[in-house]
Amino acid sequence: MYHDEVLSLLHSVKDGATSPEEAVLLLKKRPFEDLGYAKIDHHRQLRHGIPEVVFGGGKTAEQISGILTAMRDGGYVSVLVTRLDPDKAEAVNAVIPIAYHPVPRMGIFGELPDTSTDGVIAVAAAGTSDLPVAEEAAITAQSLGNRVERLYDVGVAGLHRLLSKLDVLMEARVVVAVAGMEGALATVVGGLVACPVVAVPTSVGYGANFGGLSALLSMLNSCAGNVSVVNIDNGFGAGYLAGIINRIGEHRQ
Amino acid sequence: MYHDEVLSLLHSVKDGATSPEEAVLLLKKRPFEDLGYAKIDHHRQLRHGIPEVVFGGGKTAEQISGILTAMRDGGYVSVLVTRLDPDKAEAVNAVIPIAYHPVPRMGIFGELPDTSTDGVIAVAAAGTSDLPVAEEAAITAQSLGNRVERLYDVGVAGLHRLLSKLDVLMEARVVVAVAGMEGALATVVGGLVACPVVAVPTSVGYGANFGGLSALLSMLNSCAGNVSVVNIDNGFGAGYLAGIINRIGEHRQ
Amino acid sequence: MYHDEVLSLLHSVKDGATSPEEAVLLLKKRPFEDLGYAKIDHHRQLRHGIPEVVFGGGKTAEQISGILTAMRDGGYVSVLVTRLDPDKAEAVNAVIPIAYHPVPRMGIFGELPDTSTDGVIAVAAAGTSDLPVAEEAAITAQSLGNRVERLYDVGVAGLHRLLSKLDVLMEARVVVAVAGMEGALATVVGGLVACPVVAVPTSVGYGANFGGLSALLSMLNSCAGNVSVVNIDNGFGAGYLAGIINRIGEHRQ
Amino acid sequence: MYHDEVLSLLHSVKDGATSPEEAVLLLKKRPFEDLGYAKIDHHRQLRHGIPEVVFGGGKTAEQISGILTAMRDGGYVSVLVTRLDPDKAEAVNAVIPIAYHPVPRMGIFGELPDTSTDGVIAVAAAGTSDLPVAEEAAITAQSLGNRVERLYDVGVAGLHRLLSKLDVLMEARVVVAVAGMEGALATVVGGLVACPVVAVPTSVGYGANFGGLSALLSMLNSCAGNVSVVNIDNGFGAGYLAGIINRIGEHRQ
Amino acid sequence: MYHDEVLSLLHSVKDGATSPEEAVLLLKKRPFEDLGYAKIDHHRQLRHGIPEVVFGGGKTAEQISGILTAMRDGGYVSVLVTRLDPDKAEAVNAVIPIAYHPVPRMGIFGELPDTSTDGVIAVAAAGTSDLPVAEEAAITAQSLGNRVERLYDVGVAGLHRLLSKLDVLMEARVVVAVAGMEGALATVVGGLVACPVVAVPTSVGYGANFGGLSALLSMLNSCAGNVSVVNIDNGFGAGYLAGIINRIGEHRQ
Amino acid sequence: MYHDEVLSLLHSVKDGATSPEEAVLLLKKRPFEDLGYAKIDHHRQLRHGIPEVVFGGGKTAEQISGILTAMRDGGYVSVLVTRLDPDKAEAVNAVIPIAYHPVPRMGIFGELPDTSTDGVIAVAAAGTSDLPVAEEAAITAQSLGNRVERLYDVGVAGLHRLLSKLDVLMEARVVVAVAGMEGALATVVGGLVACPVVAVPTSVGYGANFGGLSALLSMLNSCAGNVSVVNIDNGFGAGYLAGIINRIGEHRQ
Amino acid sequence: MYHDEVLSLLHSVKDGATSPEEAVLLLKKRPFEDLGYAKIDHHRQLRHGIPEVVFGGGKTAEQISGILTAMRDGGYVSVLVTRLDPDKAEAVNAVIPIAYHPVPRMGIFGELPDTSTDGVIAVAAAGTSDLPVAEEAAITAQSLGNRVERLYDVGVAGLHRLLSKLDVLMEARVVVAVAGMEGALATVVGGLVACPVVAVPTSVGYGANFGGLSALLSMLNSCAGNVSVVNIDNGFGAGYLAGIINRIGEHRQ
Amino acid sequence: MYHDEVLSLLHSVKDGATSPEEAVLLLKKRPFEDLGYAKIDHHRQLRHGIPEVVFGGGKTAEQISGILTAMRDGGYVSVLVTRLDPDKAEAVNAVIPIAYHPVPRMGIFGELPDTSTDGVIAVAAAGTSDLPVAEEAAITAQSLGNRVERLYDVGVAGLHRLLSKLDVLMEARVVVAVAGMEGALATVVGGLVACPVVAVPTSVGYGANFGGLSALLSMLNSCAGNVSVVNIDNGFGAGYLAGIINRIGEHRQ
Repeated sequence: MYHDEVLSLLHSVKDGATSPEEAVLLLKKRPFEDLGYAKIDHHRQLRHGIPEVVFGGGKTAEQISGILTAMRDGGYVSVLVTRLDPDKAEAVNAVIPIAYHPVPRMGIFGELPDTSTDGVIAVAAAGTSDLPVAEEAAITAQSLGNRVERLYDVGVAGLHRLLSKLDVLMEARVVVAVAGMEGALATVVGGLVACPVVAVPTSVGYGANFGGLSALLSMLNSCAGNVSVVNIDNGFGAGYLAGIINRIGEHRQ
Repeated sequence: MYHDEVLSLLHSVKDGATSPEEAVLLLKKRPFEDLGYAKIDHHRQLRHGIPEVVFGGGKTAEQISGILTAMRDGGYVSVLVTRLDPDKAEAVNAVIPIAYHPVPRMGIFGELPDTSTDGVIAVAAAGTSDLPVAEEAAITAQSLGNRVERLYDVGVAGLHRLLSKLDVLMEARVVVAVAGMEGALATVVGGLVACPVVAVPTSVGYGANFGGLSALLSMLNSCAGNVSVVNIDNGFGAGYLAGIINRIGEHRQ
Repeated sequence: MYHDEVLSLLHSVKDGATSPEEAVLLLKKRPFEDLGYAKIDHHRQLRHGIPEVVFGGGKTAEQISGILTAMRDGGYVSVLVTRLDPDKAEAVNAVIPIAYHPVPRMGIFGELPDTSTDGVIAVAAAGTSDLPVAEEAAITAQSLGNRVERLYDVGVAGLHRLLSKLDVLMEARVVVAVAGMEGALATVVGGLVACPVVAVPTSVGYGANFGGLSALLSMLNSCAGNVSVVNIDNGFGAGYLAGIINRIGEHRQ
Repeated sequence: MYHDEVLSLLHSVKDGATSPEEAVLLLKKRPFEDLGYAKIDHHRQLRHGIPEVVFGGGKTAEQISGILTAMRDGGYVSVLVTRLDPDKAEAVNAVIPIAYHPVPRMGIFGELPDTSTDGVIAVAAAGTSDLPVAEEAAITAQSLGNRVERLYDVGVAGLHRLLSKLDVLMEARVVVAVAGMEGALATVVGGLVACPVVAVPTSVGYGANFGGLSALLSMLNSCAGNVSVVNIDNGFGAGYLAGIINRIGEHRQ
Repeated sequence: MYHDEVLSLLHSVKDGATSPEEAVLLLKKRPFEDLGYAKIDHHRQLRHGIPEVVFGGGKTAEQISGILTAMRDGGYVSVLVTRLDPDKAEAVNAVIPIAYHPVPRMGIFGELPDTSTDGVIAVAAAGTSDLPVAEEAAITAQSLGNRVERLYDVGVAGLHRLLSKLDVLMEARVVVAVAGMEGALATVVGGLVACPVVAVPTSVGYGANFGGLSALLSMLNSCAGNVSVVNIDNGFGAGYLAGIINRIGEHRQ
Repeated sequence: MYHDEVLSLLHSVKDGATSPEEAVLLLKKRPFEDLGYAKIDHHRQLRHGIPEVVFGGGKTAEQISGILTAMRDGGYVSVLVTRLDPDKAEAVNAVIPIAYHPVPRMGIFGELPDTSTDGVIAVAAAGTSDLPVAEEAAITAQSLGNRVERLYDVGVAGLHRLLSKLDVLMEARVVVAVAGMEGALATVVGGLVACPVVAVPTSVGYGANFGGLSALLSMLNSCAGNVSVVNIDNGFGAGYLAGIINRIGEHRQ
Repeated sequence: MYHDEVLSLLHSVKDGATSPEEAVLLLKKRPFEDLGYAKIDHHRQLRHGIPEVVFGGGKTAEQISGILTAMRDGGYVSVLVTRLDPDKAEAVNAVIPIAYHPVPRMGIFGELPDTSTDGVIAVAAAGTSDLPVAEEAAITAQSLGNRVERLYDVGVAGLHRLLSKLDVLMEARVVVAVAGMEGALATVVGGLVACPVVAVPTSVGYGANFGGLSALLSMLNSCAGNVSVVNIDNGFGAGYLAGIINRIGEHRQ
Repeated sequence: MYHDEVLSLLHSVKDGATSPEEAVLLLKKRPFEDLGYAKIDHHRQLRHGIPEVVFGGGKTAEQISGILTAMRDGGYVSVLVTRLDPDKAEAVNAVIPIAYHPVPRMGIFGELPDTSTDGVIAVAAAGTSDLPVAEEAAITAQSLGNRVERLYDVGVAGLHRLLSKLDVLMEARVVVAVAGMEGALATVVGGLVACPVVAVPTSVGYGANFGGLSALLSMLNSCAGNVSVVNIDNGFGAGYLAGIINRIGEHRQ
């Protein structure tokens, strides 16, 4: 497309329809968009149907509702807001309607895509305290149009619970493994399945977990070769990444 | 398959062809393989055509050639050996023939799969000192039958070099981003492409890089949502993971 | 037992009382319980008389009373709740009766076992600030039916206090050593006794104790060979572990 | 000047106008000022027109207004107060008038210098959460009489936004690069420009950013040779340092 | 005993057989031995039949053979030497005969106890690189007269290998779990068995394992309540501790 | 003294005034006090006139006043309470009278010793934020009867302020150097004086000071040979230690 | 320049001298150079007369001489090689002539610029062990045409040595402060001068310096506002940065 | 003295014997020495009889013998060389005679002071591996003319060995406590004695001692109030500091 657009501009210059001076300005003003060098943020949703994301942590309800209003006016169809406390959600909702998920503290503006993938993302979480992060991953992946199966409370200290869900794990196209404390879930799951595993360490624990460092190092040192890791408590990132991996296998990729 | 095998065993019990006592022994002896609870290591290659891997670090040439001989005799068609020093490679080669790649210090026994994917894995490396890790990723991915494009010396302190390869990046189905020092390549690449990025921090650097900690933390904190991270210097893991992600998009997955 | 249960199932198949299809489902549905591969959590208490444990930290009073009610209805005779703040304890108690210990912030539902071991667990604590962790260990061990002797305020900077309790230490079958700051108690006690010492670093201290790291490293590097370590502030774990070690020496083990 | 002052004192001794005993006292009493061994703090502003700075963090409104009053009475023309919360600012303002900037939480007493440099300091910030630190740098530099250009929301995960401001960056005499999370902005900017880059890591982020450690290490390991680093969140230091570097190029240096 | 010995001394004083001055010297000279305040090192072996241990790391062959000779002359029947390199072992053996185990690099002087416990210590190791540490634990425990079962190459990324040894694990009185990298073995084993688990993190791995920190933190944060931890690579400590725990259950404790 | 006391006891046994059985009890009951093996805590004040210390951090006002009352009733003449918040001090004072110092948050019960040393302890502090720690050191030392000179606001970034106090420093018998941030004061002072320097790192600072780690490491790595270090913010320890060092030089030591 | 070049190309298109198809290729082939978006590496020396740099660490003599030969053939006039061991230097010199500086282990190919700045860079180093890093900074700065004054062995534990060089420091336009251990030199110098200070922590020291971490943190936490920091042992970076800062004040900037 | 010297100079100016210009030069040339602002390094030995110290680590034998020769020619009577390997010592000795102590690897040039203090420094070391550091402390202190008592192999895991030396400890004026691993010796000794304790953590140990960090943190967090700490393995510093503390109590201080 770059080739075509610039070529037509140059033909227009050749034909005298555009002066060289005008052409220079056009090229200079839109260097990257025009040249196709980067995905253009504000066109992303329109082209891909992928919801936008606003990181709600550290923003006021006023700021968030302002941003959402501006995005709606700019034509965005759906927007996710992460790390949104319940009271802020209420205040935002008074300005612009959002659907609120209290466990992962996410708000969703607009309508999510109907389409759902053939492939399945399994979201496995070790303990009940890991649920907020796991749900952030699950809802993010669903918001991107992916089919998600939840496997919760499958920590490896009670191995039979995990193994009783083995069929779900082995049929998944991608697994998101969410665990705090010793973070062993990622490696055990990685050894059981053949597909990619996105591991999310959580800050759940105390003492020598040092805010999630324990699970993070554990997951990075996994002896399973199909495991990669995102930041501590980064459920959104894991869900997003699992979503784009899963969609590689779809027809409408 | 579990269902079928066990079912036929049970029918055989019902029919009197197998005694309950024999059946119990068969089930007990092979509890997991038979029950389909886990991928069976020694059957993996035969079924998937995926080469096996031996971690050569810390093993003697004698041990490695012993392992390779045993695997060959066990029917393995191809085996990768990682972290294999040149002198050890020579000693191994005197016992059992291997092809040796000196930059990533990898040895390959047997024949690799002919098939090559439609999708492309782009392996991007920041500096020349990152090449051993990048090559480990690239050759691993190729050994799994993936098509690989190498983008080397594209560190973000010389952004034009990276941007001149933008077409390759944007056409890739997966990108492996290899960088030491400040590890910024992962985030910049993550922002330029829409596909999954597997980031590999390397221990290249000195002083406050603390053995790769700098690049590791940088990559984990990437503000690009499509980046996940493997262990420091883990080129093999990144190549393997990129390979299985890439193959999700193939017909013969 | 696995042998027997599966054998009788197989005989039942042979006899036609169970169809192969039914047998397959039974094996698949309860893969681990049936095969005896793991201790079955929800049967544990009934078989062993060991109280269950609920980690109260980060749970609401509502959640805790809900869990306790469900466990009571499920037939549990006694349940420990750790890290339970006084106000939550009051709220829980309004729903389901618990005995509350304010120092270790533990609540106990139901009746604890009468039986008490012959062997003694000595719980030694360095300073008064370490008492909550020490009491968590002591009450946990007692809840498991162990006899416990408390040796408090025996920090090694006042060695005569510890040495005046030498007879208690030397008669113990297991010692739990609880200390913050420099954590030296574990090593000194380890050198004085011949039995196993379970060391619990606490987060008591300030500055360069870095949340308990100082005592943790001190205890891990103990030059006494009979010392092992649990997580920072993990009084429950130490009491539980000491309890099962102590019971190895009992007749009714 | 040292030479001259002491010489005239010695001549005065020689001439008998000053007794040796008096001279000894004069030398002893003002050992460093007289000898020119150090810049004299309380003369600095008068000589250089540089505003003084008060670190407001951890001080009460009462203490701050007391200090400002004393400085005003001591002849100071302008004083910056950093890390001043809005409510404290209001309380201070009731005692002594200050202009308050809420984003960087800075208060300014008195009039800032009119003069503005020919050279430009570009202050680039990666994300909106980095703005308080970036504004602290920008306003500090302006307070020292420097011309400042702000380039905000130019994080490297959206490279086109940064590149669209390339002309501003390349014309700057110094760049201040402010970024949290993976801190890659410093290296990318360092590679794009030829001038000095003062990098400010911020504590923006979560999980494995460990309070800014991630961005700090990233910036220290920058492979761009023109980057140096100040403390995490130290916008004041970066603005001050950029200001004195920029003024090296001015006539009235 | 203290009571008796001192009492007879005092009676001897009363009777005039010992002068008060002589009695004072006797009491002063042997303050701790006589008063029973501490186990007397050099009597330990004679009383308990427990071999002594010499840490060979950092000692020369000459120093080690000198120590062994002195111990033999002092009446010691058996002595373990840990971290003894093969060449040093040869040199030591030329002076005083030792049996040498090359994998754990241990030397044994003298005859080990015949007696073997009823109870079994299971030593489980994740990978082949963990064998030196695992063997140090196993041989140490055996040297103390314990029965040991070895379960090697049972890392949790290949769960079926561990689960196929479940019967051995579940019959053990104590388990030693040895693992490097992500150290998940300790938690998985801890969840499968009801007995105490002594976890040994190893320094096996690279990159973000930071010399064993990864496995250490993982094991300390285990969500299994029956796991305690010794220092990185401390096979001796784990074997010694498992041995004294195991012997609690024996008649000849 | 041990000799004398025990000897007279033994003579009393010899003379029949004390029976051997009584003597055994006396020896057993007070094993350490009688034998002089340790300083006897509850006799310390009476013998030395040194005030006792109660660590107030984490204790309630009720607990503190209870402890003080018990100590007063036990004959203590003076007691220091550290880390005592103003509101707690008020509540304590309502029960038992204390003198309260708000800056170091210390309370003093009873009368301090009149005597003051010939030697001087110089307490030097870098910034005003370091004053609470410096005052804790100064008042502690004074409470032990030492003469103290305060040198405040002498941070090394304004070297002339420190150097203007050089005479005080050089006449001191001990110096306490209190500094946060980069902690350079300890080394600079250590190089200027010939006497012992007790360095106290403080947690003053932000960002890469990591709670005082920066100053702590700086002081531990001091290239001045006369510097030793206490824990972060440990003003009490520094004042106590400086006090006992200073008193070594007194006649009434 | 971008404007002019592209404009002339467009005029050439308009005039028919260049076809649109040719123009598109020209634009595509050199997207960043032509558009002025980045400094073009291989043109840098020709335009600025700045020597190129090759990081010699981890490269073989063969690789280095190969790179130098290629650069010479490509028209480079002068090249610095850092971290070049003496034996490698000899081997390189046999292929292509270099001048070798053994203390900083630097090699220089070609002729350095004659021109020398009016402004002076003072390079101050704390101890003799810091000299290699200091010399790397000094020679790098000189290679860029800067005037350099060396102030060596001016560690702050012997303050008089530093202060005796105060005149040199105060006349400098930039100071490079090089120190290991406690790294206090940066702050002391920063307080004495008004110009920018580039601080270089070195790995000189032992124990708690943790490979330079001590000096690094010390310098980052400097309470002097004119100090910024580069990586541990990064003498090259400091010299380069000081050089470009110094040249800001020159006429021929 | 400052007063007198400068006064006589000023009188000399007044009298015309010295011109003001000459006086200015004299003052400027020796600003700190003349003004008494700092201890003059090269005069220290002559005045105090204290040996000089050369840090031998990282210096060649040639450099060391050069320095010693220069110092001898400069009038130094005695010089200590620390961290001097045996082979270097031999090479140095061939040039200039030194007495060599192989355990602490120290060389001594010249004659040490005859005088020995009344007060005693007790140097206590936990294990035999700590001896090099302990001997460095002991010999350093002796070299400064102090009386030293060695208490070796008194680690707290064998408490009776330490307690059997209690009389030596309690009579000491200062104690140096040297320990690696868990470093508990410092606290135990600190609690037993009333005098200052200088604690030296050593790097002895492995695994989670992280190069001495474990003992360092342990000692910094000591709950004994009379303990201060020097750098890891810094035997010299501890011996020097103990020496100057001990001499405070001497007549000839």
